[in-house]
Amino acid sequence: MAVKFQSSKYHVCLVSSIILNLFFFINLYEGGKWKQLSWSQRAAAEAEAVASVSCSGHGRAYLDGLVVDGKPVCECNTCFGGPDCSEFSPGCPADADSGDPLFLEPFWMQNAASSAMLVAGWHRMSYRFSDLSFISQELEKHIRKVHAIAKNAVTEGKYIVFGGGSTQVLNAAVYALSQQNSSSPAKVFASIPYYPIYKSQTDFFRSVDFEFEGDTSLLDNSTSDDPTNVIEFVTSPNNPDGQLKKAVLQGPSVKTIHDHAYYWPHFTAIPAPADEDVMIFTISKLTGHAGSRFGWALIKDEAVYQTMLTYMTMSEMGVSRDTQLRALKLLKVVLEGEGREIFDFAYETMRKRWEKLSQTLAMSKRFSIQEILPQYCTFFQKVRGPSPAYAWLKCEREEDRDCSAVLQAANIIGREGSMFTAGNRYVRLSLIKSQDDFNLLLQRINKLVSEEDDIKSM
Amino acid sequence: MAVKFQSSKYHVCLVSSIILNLFFFINLYEGGKWKQLSWSQRAAAEAEAVASVSCSGHGRAYLDGLVVDGKPVCECNTCFGGPDCSEFSPGCPADADSGDPLFLEPFWMQNAASSAMLVAGWHRMSYRFSDLSFISQELEKHIRKVHAIAKNAVTEGKYIVFGGGSTQVLNAAVYALSQQNSSSPAKVFASIPYYPIYKSQTDFFRSVDFEFEGDTSLLDNSTSDDPTNVIEFVTSPNNPDGQLKKAVLQGPSVKTIHDHAYYWPHFTAIPAPADEDVMIFTISKLTGHAGSRFGWALIKDEAVYQTMLTYMTMSEMGVSRDTQLRALKLLKVVLEGEGREIFDFAYETMRKRWEKLSQTLAMSKRFSIQEILPQYCTFFQKVRGPSPAYAWLKCEREEDRDCSAVLQAANIIGREGSMFTAGNRYVRLSLIKSQDDFNLLLQRINKLVSEEDDIKSM
Repeated sequence: MAVKFQSSKYHVCLVSSIILNLFFFINLYEGGKWKQLSWSQRAAAEAEAVASVSCSGHGRAYLDGLVVDGKPVCECNTCFGGPDCSEFSPGCPADADSGDPLFLEPFWMQNAASSAMLVAGWHRMSYRFSDLSFISQELEKHIRKVHAIAKNAVTEGKYIVFGGGSTQVLNAAVYALSQQNSSSPAKVFASIPYYPIYKSQTDFFRSVDFEFEGDTSLLDNSTSDDPTNVIEFVTSPNNPDGQLKKAVLQGPSVKTIHDHAYYWPHFTAIPAPADEDVMIFTISKLTGHAGSRFGWALIKDEAVYQTMLTYMTMSEMGVSRDTQLRALKLLKVVLEGEGREIFDFAYETMRKRWEKLSQTLAMSKRFSIQEILPQYCTFFQKVRGPSPAYAWLKCEREEDRDCSAVLQAANIIGREGSMFTAGNRYVRLSLIKSQDDFNLLLQRINKLVSEEDDIKSM
Repeated sequence: MAVKFQSSKYHVCLVSSIILNLFFFINLYEGGKWKQLSWSQRAAAEAEAVASVSCSGHGRAYLDGLVVDGKPVCECNTCFGGPDCSEFSPGCPADADSGDPLFLEPFWMQNAASSAMLVAGWHRMSYRFSDLSFISQELEKHIRKVHAIAKNAVTEGKYIVFGGGSTQVLNAAVYALSQQNSSSPAKVFASIPYYPIYKSQTDFFRSVDFEFEGDTSLLDNSTSDDPTNVIEFVTSPNNPDGQLKKAVLQGPSVKTIHDHAYYWPHFTAIPAPADEDVMIFTISKLTGHAGSRFGWALIKDEAVYQTMLTYMTMSEMGVSRDTQLRALKLLKVVLEGEGREIFDFAYETMRKRWEKLSQTLAMSKRFSIQEILPQYCTFFQKVRGPSPAYAWLKCEREEDRDCSAVLQAANIIGREGSMFTAGNRYVRLSLIKSQDDFNLLLQRINKLVSEEDDIKSM
């Protein structure tokens, strides 16, 4: 009897022990390989520890952020504070100024496993890749694939140059297209309203070979007495107003730089793949990684390509290999499911924001926003409505000459129309920031509109 | 008896099972925490899989390298080939051309765990850090600490600007120091032999505000008729010859850019911390990560600092956050043990290489290399001999006017003296590449010297 009892106790112990073994085994062994890591363990654990810091959904801690008492500190969204970002400051302005594409942050948090990347200490220490270039062939291949699935650009027969964000690529293009050793500098134009960097950057570098002139309508006067080299910036969709644009200037001495930063299915219908001679894109507005500073150009002409490559060499010997590795990892995730995952997420987010904002403003007589017509999109294979990155708001009342001041009085920060050479009756409102930023903007706009006399009396 | 036997079988099973459980437990639990990782597991496993590809010690596979049949491909050191880099090509030239600092790669492989870094998909997507700058405060702090332990620069009272390698910082400094809106462009000088980028970069950007003049000895003529703005590049230790240098030009209109890329304990004695107004450094020659494109300037004057910051904004809105994160991780490892680990490793490597090369060349009458005097080093706290990054080789025979061609005939590639504006009797030989590169160089130089008539007859 005692033996039998002991034997059954053994049974229980043994079975429990075996079950525990099984549990451990499952946790350590997967897909024919031991999951146990060696040298990468510490970095992975560090990253998970930082990611597990709770910031109430209104912030996040970073690996290179401040550390207080051995704990990484939360970096909060605008208007949130406190150790865990849970404290909202009611009087804080709704900041719709910058084009910070944080609307995509939740997508990357949802895709944590596929988008994480572990960099070894000895990763790509050399100046050059093994083909002696400064450009990752794998990354170049992936860029071509992304354009193919997004159906937004023809890459066949085009060279690719990488730069530090589209910012650096823009200036490299101006440099390459301005005729060196010409008797007079190339004149650079854009159509109002235009992205302010075109002017500020071209002015800043004070080159012998190019100078910014201004709106394309100014060209007539200048060509009549001087058939000089001309460069036109065409931004399509346009920043600030989201309209698809074509080149205005034509002629043998005219070269065009097509800035397609926003030509992705999130922000616009894609009627057809772009197929121009110089096209510029940026990861900032594709995946939302503005901080990674990675842009590229698709170039038809070999001489222009070579000059732009030399520009990148002379500037900084190509884009950081760390940045190229990151871009590659992110594009691999973009390519999953033929791009449907990221483009669906991004389009839905932008579409909803636009809908909410335009519903509110439809009631207003004081304010209007741009109209963007529905159009057939070859990516989504349907007619789709607007989902632009920015609202281009106009103050309609005679007395509201300084629209930015009107918004500021309502505790809303936008970017003045004058920044886009468009006059201060306009303000650009960014719709691509965090959900917190958008919610606060919408709330303040709602309040502002509800205070209009006609609406109050309803 | 049967029961007893069964019971002892149970004993064995149970004990084995418990031991196995203990083994699993130890593998999963450490320091009060479960080691089990979630979303970071895949990235960590990917990195370890790539690192485990065997390339015979003559190459390595990279995370963003080519993949053939699902396996990452080895990228081999120069002169090695085959799927696992085990095949040496006997006729392959010894390439001592570039300043690729791969001599430090083994250090990072030895410090795999502390130098690995895992980047989350949502890491720093914003254009700006939370203080609205483009510069990581943590990284800035670590740079100051590294200078403090290396004792090579005074950082108190200095501003810090980051750039894409020292390459970009150099041009930003020229831009900031050339007096804007001056009637004539600033004239830029350096002392022969000098780093070729100073000229090629200043020429390339074709600014209204600066132009490259050449050797500092040319200044007298230019100042007599035009007391213009003058900028001098001072490289200390000098590239190519490793000598510590001081500014040559003096006067109220002279500004100096001190390029201290090589002013680290590996390459030179550190007699005292540098304390000049504009000092430029790069991670490339500190940790060996040339591919990361990260450099910085220590700046005394606030206006110069502000202009350089604007330059970085206009160029590309600051250095990629991915690069800044990597630099931070690497500097944390540099700081371990007060820098003794990396500086000991790097100095010993460079010292031994120099010793071997100079022993061989001491026998030669045909070739000579620069003399570098022993000097007290405040980092190592002792008088130490030479360990420069480059040998500055001179062909002494009257007929060997083209020294580079002489070496080429012996299957050695160096960088011609004319690149440093020094005439072709000189060639720069890089000593900082991989051990494979150095071994082959030494072997070929040995052969060349042993063929000299005097030596052959010995």
